Amino acid sequence: MKEFRKISVIGLGLIASSICLTLRQKDPTIKLVGYDKDKVVRNRAKKIGLCKVESNLDNAVSGSQLIILCVPVGQMQAVTQRLKKIIEPGTTITDVGSVKLSVIEEIESNIESVGGKYVPSHPIAGTERSGPDAGYAGLFEGRWCILTPTRKTNKKALNSLETFWKFLGMQTKIMTPEHHDLVLAVTSHAPHLIAYTMVGVVDDLETVTKSEIINYSAAGFRDFTRIAASDPVMWRDIFLNNQDAHLEVLGRFTEELFSLQRAIRKKDGEYLLKYFERTRSIRKGIVAAGQDTGTPNFGRD
Amino acid sequence: MKEFRKISVIGLGLIASSICLTLRQKDPTIKLVGYDKDKVVRNRAKKIGLCKVESNLDNAVSGSQLIILCVPVGQMQAVTQRLKKIIEPGTTITDVGSVKLSVIEEIESNIESVGGKYVPSHPIAGTERSGPDAGYAGLFEGRWCILTPTRKTNKKALNSLETFWKFLGMQTKIMTPEHHDLVLAVTSHAPHLIAYTMVGVVDDLETVTKSEIINYSAAGFRDFTRIAASDPVMWRDIFLNNQDAHLEVLGRFTEELFSLQRAIRKKDGEYLLKYFERTRSIRKGIVAAGQDTGTPNFGRD
Repeated sequence: MKEFRKISVIGLGLIASSICLTLRQKDPTIKLVGYDKDKVVRNRAKKIGLCKVESNLDNAVSGSQLIILCVPVGQMQAVTQRLKKIIEPGTTITDVGSVKLSVIEEIESNIESVGGKYVPSHPIAGTERSGPDAGYAGLFEGRWCILTPTRKTNKKALNSLETFWKFLGMQTKIMTPEHHDLVLAVTSHAPHLIAYTMVGVVDDLETVTKSEIINYSAAGFRDFTRIAASDPVMWRDIFLNNQDAHLEVLGRFTEELFSLQRAIRKKDGEYLLKYFERTRSIRKGIVAAGQDTGTPNFGRD
Repeated sequence: MKEFRKISVIGLGLIASSICLTLRQKDPTIKLVGYDKDKVVRNRAKKIGLCKVESNLDNAVSGSQLIILCVPVGQMQAVTQRLKKIIEPGTTITDVGSVKLSVIEEIESNIESVGGKYVPSHPIAGTERSGPDAGYAGLFEGRWCILTPTRKTNKKALNSLETFWKFLGMQTKIMTPEHHDLVLAVTSHAPHLIAYTMVGVVDDLETVTKSEIINYSAAGFRDFTRIAASDPVMWRDIFLNNQDAHLEVLGRFTEELFSLQRAIRKKDGEYLLKYFERTRSIRKGIVAAGQDTGTPNFGRD
C-alpha cells in the first residue's frame, strides 16, 4: 500500500472498524483517521483505540490520500456536500454502500467538480452486528469487493482502489452500477427483507407465545432472526434507494411463493418435491467457492 | 434408562443415527436395532456400525421395548400398517414427525388396537444433512422435545418417553397436537418454505449468473441456501400434512411482505425503520435461551 499512507474512514461502524483493525494488522505504518457525527460513537472508537478520532470532518480528512465513506446510504449526500468544500484536489474517495446507482448520483459529480477522484465500491462482507465494537480483522478475508466505475471514473484511481481492497484480503470484480444493484437485490436485499418479514409475522402472532418461538426456533426460524438483527437504519436506506430492483425481485418472489402455496392447497406433492430437489445444488456451489462453511448448521451447535 | 433396554429405530436418517450415536455414548448396554426399507441405507448403516441392522421389519422390532419411527411423515401410515401385524402388546411406540395431527390419526388407533402404547413426540433438532451419515452424538443436547399426548395416551408410557428424551439431553414440553402444528408452522415450516422459495427465485433468474449468486452470497443469501438444502422428501411430506397451519401462516406472511413492499414503493422510511427496529429483540431472546450462538455470523467465518 504505497499509495495510500494516510486513510480516513467516515462513519465508524462495522465496516470502518474492520478496515482499521485489518489495516493495522497488515501495515501498522499506515495512518488511520476516523470521524463519526455521533459523539458517543467517536468516544467509543477513541476508547478502544480504533484509529485517531477527530471531532470534526475537516481535520479527519486533511492530508489523506484516501477517504472511505462508511455511513448509511441515506447519509452519503450530506457527507458529500460537506466534503466538497474541504477535500484537496487529487484525493481518492470511495464509499462502501450496498446500493450503487443512487449513491453515485449523489457523490460523483460533486466530488469530481472539486478535483477529487471518486471510485464507487462495495465490499461484500458483514455480520448482524453494528457500531465501532462490531469490527474485526479478517472480516474481508476471501470475500468479494465489487467496484462499479462509470465513464467518468479515473482509471488509475480505480486500479489503486482495487489494490487497496485486495490488500485487505478481498477478491475484486468490476461491474456496472445497474448490474450490481440487481445482483445485490437478489443476494442480499431481498433475503434481508424476507427475513425481517418472517420475524415480524412471528412477533405479531397472538396464538403462539414469545417463549415458544424462542424455545423452538432451532427448527429453522433462528436463522432468520440473525439476519433480521441487522442495523435498521442501514437497511431502511438500502430499501429507499434500490426501489426498481427490489420491486422486481419481490414480485418474482411472491409469484413463486404463490405457486408453492397453491401446491400445498392442492396437495401437489410432485410439484413440491421437484422444487425442493433443485435447490440443493446452489448450496454446494457456495460451499465449494469458499463463501460458506460446509459444516452442518454452520458448525454453531 | 431402565425401562427401554432394547430400542428399535425405523428409518435410518439424521434423527435415527443421532439417537444411536447419542445412546451409545450415554449407555452402551442398551441394545439398538435399526431398519430401513432402502437396502443402500441399511448397508451404509451397517458399515459405519450405527446399530444392529436388520433387513426385515419383523426382526428389527422383535423383543424391543421402544420403537421409534423416524421415517418421513408420508411413510408413517405404511409402516404402521406393517407394525400392527407384528408388535408385541405393551410395546411403546413413538414417532419423530414434524407434524403431529395427521400422524397421530394414522398411527394411534392402529397401534392401540393391537395393545401397543403410542406416544407422539417431536424432538426439535436437525441440520441440513440427511441419511445415516448425517447423525452425531449431541444433536439433541439442550434442544426441546415436544410431546403431544391425546386423551388415549397411556400416562406411564408418556412419562417413560419424557425420561427417554431427557436422557438424550433434551428439555421436554407437553402440548396439544393442534398447538404443536401451529407453533412448528411458524418456527420451522414457513421459514423452510420461504427459504426454498428465495433459492428457487434465484435459480430462475436470467439476468444474474449462477457464479455471481455464489460469489456474492455472503451478503445474506447463503443462509437461505443452508435451509433449502434440507431433505426434499421430508419437507414435501410436511407440507402435505399440515395444510391449515401453513396456509394461515403464509397468508399472514404475504400480507406483511406486501405492507413492506408498499412502503418501499411509497418510500415510507419511517414505516421501514420501525419494522426493522422491533425485530432485534427476538434474536436476543433466542441467544439468551441457549437456542443459538451469539457470535456474529454464527461464528462460521
